[in-house]
Amino acid sequence: MTIFTKIAKGEIPSYKVAENDDFYAFLDINPMTKGHTLVIPRNTEEDYIFHLDNKTYLGLMQFSKSVALAIEKAILCKRIAVTVMGLEVPHTHIHLVPIDKESDMNIANPKLKLSTEEMAEIAEKIRNEFIP
Amino acid sequence: MTIFTKIAKGEIPSYKVAENDDFYAFLDINPMTKGHTLVIPRNTEEDYIFHLDNKTYLGLMQFSKSVALAIEKAILCKRIAVTVMGLEVPHTHIHLVPIDKESDMNIANPKLKLSTEEMAEIAEKIRNEFIP
Repeated sequence: MTIFTKIAKGEIPSYKVAENDDFYAFLDINPMTKGHTLVIPRNTEEDYIFHLDNKTYLGLMQFSKSVALAIEKAILCKRIAVTVMGLEVPHTHIHLVPIDKESDMNIANPKLKLSTEEMAEIAEKIRNEFIP
Repeated sequence: MTIFTKIAKGEIPSYKVAENDDFYAFLDINPMTKGHTLVIPRNTEEDYIFHLDNKTYLGLMQFSKSVALAIEKAILCKRIAVTVMGLEVPHTHIHLVPIDKESDMNIANPKLKLSTEEMAEIAEKIRNEFIP
């Protein structure tokens, strides 16, 4: 079972941002910017986004849009950027990253170190804005 | 009219990879890696992906999946990565980038310089693999 499946099941703790029966969104613990969120499918561990079945793929995209709109309301930023690389954890995940400028998306940037309290506060703000 | 609308209309030349009535895919002229493709909607210049109407948004995602699967067949790589930043050209566009390792996605990397012939050959290879 992947670490992300364990997170979606609540067996490993996470800062939950949004969820439904099929998808789960939570804060990246090594955020590029404040509000950096990961969105995953719950019911498959397929590790390559373009090999998901169409229903899961489009459902994941629809859910990610709702999550992005919530992040945008909760976090001061210009845009929610998207990236999917898929060479890290072997379980499809979409990065949603609040950005003000392109260089915020440089994967070589040092990651933010946020306290537990800050992470919990960011997650709560986003949860409060989420409209399923 | 944005430069991308002019490209989709054929008023500015591009290395076409795939198209249908609603979407257009072409090679990025400053590619991060060989096969780096941009996918755009034809019928709206909305510049923020998450503000597209749902039909256009999901259609764009569906079309991008088909394009990614074609790139994957045409270009030797581990994965097709995805990124959407949206702070460059003010017309929604999805980057599809063939990668072998995460660092291929570093936006600070120098861009490739490919000849007209190489670009044309890459585009043709992808076009030949595209299944609508």
